[in-house]
Amino acid sequence: MAPSPSRLVSRADIDFLLHEWLNVDELTQRPRYEEHSRETFDAVLDLSEALAEKHFAPHNRDGDTHEPHIDETGQAVVLPAVEAALRQYTAAGLQTSTFDAELGGMQLPFAVHHAASMFFQAASAGMYAYPFLAAGNANLVAAQGTPEQVQTYAVPIIEGRFFGTMCLSEPQAGSSLGDITTRAVLQDDGTYRLFGTKMWISGGDHQMGDTIVHLVLARTGPAELGVKGISLFIVPKHLVRADGTVGERNDVSLVGLNHKMGYRSTTNALLNFGEGEHTPGGSAGAVGHLVGVENRGLAAMFHMMNEARISVGAGAVALGYTGYLKSLDYARTRTQGRPADHKDPTAPPVPIIRHPDVRRMLLAQKSYVEGGLALILFCARLVDDTRSTDGRAADDAGTLLDLLTPVAKSWPSQWCLAANDLAIQVHGGYGYTRDYDVEQHYRDNRLNPIHEGTHGIQGLDLLGRKIGADGGRGLHLLTERMRHTIERSSAAGGDTKAHGDALAAVLDDLLDVTAVLGSTPDRAVALANASTYLEAFGHVTLAWLWLEQELVAADPVNALHQGKLNAAAYFFTHELPRVGPQLDLLRSRSDLLVHLDDSTL
Amino acid sequence: MAPSPSRLVSRADIDFLLHEWLNVDELTQRPRYEEHSRETFDAVLDLSEALAEKHFAPHNRDGDTHEPHIDETGQAVVLPAVEAALRQYTAAGLQTSTFDAELGGMQLPFAVHHAASMFFQAASAGMYAYPFLAAGNANLVAAQGTPEQVQTYAVPIIEGRFFGTMCLSEPQAGSSLGDITTRAVLQDDGTYRLFGTKMWISGGDHQMGDTIVHLVLARTGPAELGVKGISLFIVPKHLVRADGTVGERNDVSLVGLNHKMGYRSTTNALLNFGEGEHTPGGSAGAVGHLVGVENRGLAAMFHMMNEARISVGAGAVALGYTGYLKSLDYARTRTQGRPADHKDPTAPPVPIIRHPDVRRMLLAQKSYVEGGLALILFCARLVDDTRSTDGRAADDAGTLLDLLTPVAKSWPSQWCLAANDLAIQVHGGYGYTRDYDVEQHYRDNRLNPIHEGTHGIQGLDLLGRKIGADGGRGLHLLTERMRHTIERSSAAGGDTKAHGDALAAVLDDLLDVTAVLGSTPDRAVALANASTYLEAFGHVTLAWLWLEQELVAADPVNALHQGKLNAAAYFFTHELPRVGPQLDLLRSRSDLLVHLDDSTL
Repeated sequence: MAPSPSRLVSRADIDFLLHEWLNVDELTQRPRYEEHSRETFDAVLDLSEALAEKHFAPHNRDGDTHEPHIDETGQAVVLPAVEAALRQYTAAGLQTSTFDAELGGMQLPFAVHHAASMFFQAASAGMYAYPFLAAGNANLVAAQGTPEQVQTYAVPIIEGRFFGTMCLSEPQAGSSLGDITTRAVLQDDGTYRLFGTKMWISGGDHQMGDTIVHLVLARTGPAELGVKGISLFIVPKHLVRADGTVGERNDVSLVGLNHKMGYRSTTNALLNFGEGEHTPGGSAGAVGHLVGVENRGLAAMFHMMNEARISVGAGAVALGYTGYLKSLDYARTRTQGRPADHKDPTAPPVPIIRHPDVRRMLLAQKSYVEGGLALILFCARLVDDTRSTDGRAADDAGTLLDLLTPVAKSWPSQWCLAANDLAIQVHGGYGYTRDYDVEQHYRDNRLNPIHEGTHGIQGLDLLGRKIGADGGRGLHLLTERMRHTIERSSAAGGDTKAHGDALAAVLDDLLDVTAVLGSTPDRAVALANASTYLEAFGHVTLAWLWLEQELVAADPVNALHQGKLNAAAYFFTHELPRVGPQLDLLRSRSDLLVHLDDSTL
Repeated sequence: MAPSPSRLVSRADIDFLLHEWLNVDELTQRPRYEEHSRETFDAVLDLSEALAEKHFAPHNRDGDTHEPHIDETGQAVVLPAVEAALRQYTAAGLQTSTFDAELGGMQLPFAVHHAASMFFQAASAGMYAYPFLAAGNANLVAAQGTPEQVQTYAVPIIEGRFFGTMCLSEPQAGSSLGDITTRAVLQDDGTYRLFGTKMWISGGDHQMGDTIVHLVLARTGPAELGVKGISLFIVPKHLVRADGTVGERNDVSLVGLNHKMGYRSTTNALLNFGEGEHTPGGSAGAVGHLVGVENRGLAAMFHMMNEARISVGAGAVALGYTGYLKSLDYARTRTQGRPADHKDPTAPPVPIIRHPDVRRMLLAQKSYVEGGLALILFCARLVDDTRSTDGRAADDAGTLLDLLTPVAKSWPSQWCLAANDLAIQVHGGYGYTRDYDVEQHYRDNRLNPIHEGTHGIQGLDLLGRKIGADGGRGLHLLTERMRHTIERSSAAGGDTKAHGDALAAVLDDLLDVTAVLGSTPDRAVALANASTYLEAFGHVTLAWLWLEQELVAADPVNALHQGKLNAAAYFFTHELPRVGPQLDLLRSRSDLLVHLDDSTL
């Protein structure tokens, strides 16, 4: 397979997944996507790769080295190159991607959108965070806001004039949103005034665009209500006039920027709301507009969170992917040593790709990043099904998507980070220097197991919520699909059948353990190893996705397909077996972590 | 257990390992250590903790932020705080630690020395690299040099006046030292002149001390001889006069500094030898003094490499350890959420140490860092046996040490790095910022699987060389010790017996797989998964060390001992089972990595 020119993400792999496997062209038969064709999909992918390569990738290291700073006016400022790249992105119309045509959107399938985003996330995860967060914000307003809110706040984002954030965490409340204390006070005119401090706000302040639309969780009711007293508000950095122009500053002020290990070109802000630094309309308090109804803010926000979680997984895949391609290039060109069975010192050194241990590190990366991309595009295809079908089909897709969301968020965050670690290792000492990209990819990717719900939170979401939801329908749907794939693999024979048999065995084991945990009366014990459950569940899911790819790749066997077969073989021999001991641990219902005496740590 | 005041490494754990387990006091019965006592050991540990806390830890972040730079004279310059801290270190006599009394050394056992070094490596891995490398250099010269070389080059290092490096790698030759091209040309006066370029030289240049003694590998014979044509040379930055004073500059010049992901306070240099930038004695060429005999340089250097490899493991443990203690503090004080079985939102949030998943991350770290420390101190104790016994005892200790060296280097580099990753995760978003130490610990620790022989090289060393050496005597000795521990655990009953049974089973499995690989005619296939063998071997070794600790901790059960029992339980339930699938893979003699068509990657 000829190297992809950009070294961001393999376009050949994207095409394999979208067309040979997921048949996204089929979507153009549905009314929502009828204006689209293979040609429009290709055009978006071509354009994205070209723009990412030209305007994003060259500034990625600079964005890391020169973090945003706070200028004399108290505003955060990002590098001009970042602003210029984002102008190119919006000028090309890419910010309109998945939005409805009536809002000026391209109405692109999410599967194609996520594939296209890969190039930008691989080129500069930190720079791409701005349009990504803005789009998520506009998506939520488009889905939950009044027509006026959509027109005033979402459309300018889609047009690339405004940016947007989500403001959930506070210094004392991160994973536990029920403990937020930011207050919203209803005013006579139906607006609210907000008072409080929000932490970890990505894109929370910068000089780009006309203004920034913050989506803020705050409570109108008493603290005792926990998550049930939380509402969602639009709080723009500047008030927006009735004619859509931007007016005076709202009472939102930047307290400081966090200095991070990675993702440094994305501002990450501590924001004060209602500190009186500005006095919109003559009085202190940040003017906010309720989205939806009072006290249902968390549910509304989760509309955005689920998307955000899949996008976190997608970002992790992109960083893993480009690290893989770069370490692959390095391994093909760097010479060192001789094979174990051919140690003649007078022979010239060989490219390190000839060493089995280097191949292990490359094949592991390939299995993680191509597997991760399959997972993300599969989930994106489910999003498309929820948007373009109805009745049972839409419902099934939504249920399956809910189940897989914690996996789509956490599996790439863990394993594509592991891929970046291996990419450093393939480079040896060079990979540890800032002369090569892979150390930055690792640092950037390390954020992904933390934000939008930590790894531990995803485990509790999967085992404590999603598995049992609706009588276990999600797991049932997934199992059905897996069994269908296993049946097809059985008919294929050979290695494919063996892989199917292995998956069938571990799937039975997983279902058995799931039943054991479900019938465990002590909920604390049942959930004690939820992270391990998440990891086992993730690897089983990925084994299934590799079996799916293997079935597609079996005929005809070209170079790309042979690569898929190799990576599948790697996953089944080196990766899936990790699950056995994890399931044994879960089945034992070990209570070590529940009854531990903390003082002995 | 009361928190250790310094949060570097637990002194209580060190005392447990040195005294309750390894009985280092016993060493004071031997002539080499007869001047020592528990009191002198304690004094060195007390002093080290205090100095590390006062002079190293406070400047660790600053050393990371302000990397060494090259001044107008072309010399590398490190922060004044680094120089000041190292002056304190040598003024306290700590650089004399393990050296012979006749060279001005303390003649301290290595077990105590490594324990004391933990504090410095935890406080600032980057700063401690300078005295550590210098000591390793002096050790080699003391062992292999002429009396004059020892007096001229080693003693000033021991006294803290000179620094030292090891110069092995070149831009085109890192793991494969047989390919170095630096040449050494014999002169009429018996000295040599060296010409070539050396890469990745830690401490390769700086303004500290009177000069820097480089130990350089270079070839006097033709390239065709590979490693057999390599000799070892002392090449000082300045020529040293007969009276011991420092004279004119030698022809060694700094080409540039590498900018790394971590370990930033340690200069890492590209050095030119014999470029003619200086002309010692009137002519170009770096003046060098042969150490030992021609063409035996690599063997001589390995005297230092083995020590260096154990010290790499020790450094990895120290970084893991301090990250563990800091995340433990954080988990005790940070409140967030409520337990799974007690979700009342009106109840106050609990310290996150109450959440099972946080406990998992803490207990995992504890099992890695305390296990890693046990491994390092066990190996150090073997070094002491080689130096203070003779005949069979010294020989056995040396053989066992040779076998365990790749494990002592690689296991902590992998798992104590994993500990740092978990320490970040325990801190959540805060751990991803540079306001907390753990992200730097992670970045610093990421070097350890790379330098002094990568992970892959260690795997080949263990499986391809050490396992089969001397008819497998090392493995036989280790197995004997393990079986003895298993017998004692069997007598102890309860969990300890169960753990012993588990270890016995996996040990049999490991030995069986070792035999299978040993009898595999195709050496490339036998070694294809050497890294996996290394990892499995490491986990089995650590399970044994945890069983050893468990036996000591069983009676009486105080808080520290209970902590050991918990960590052992964690290791046997969550960690040792990882080995099963690894051994299955090895037993299958999978040739996937050997026969892979590279073009499909």
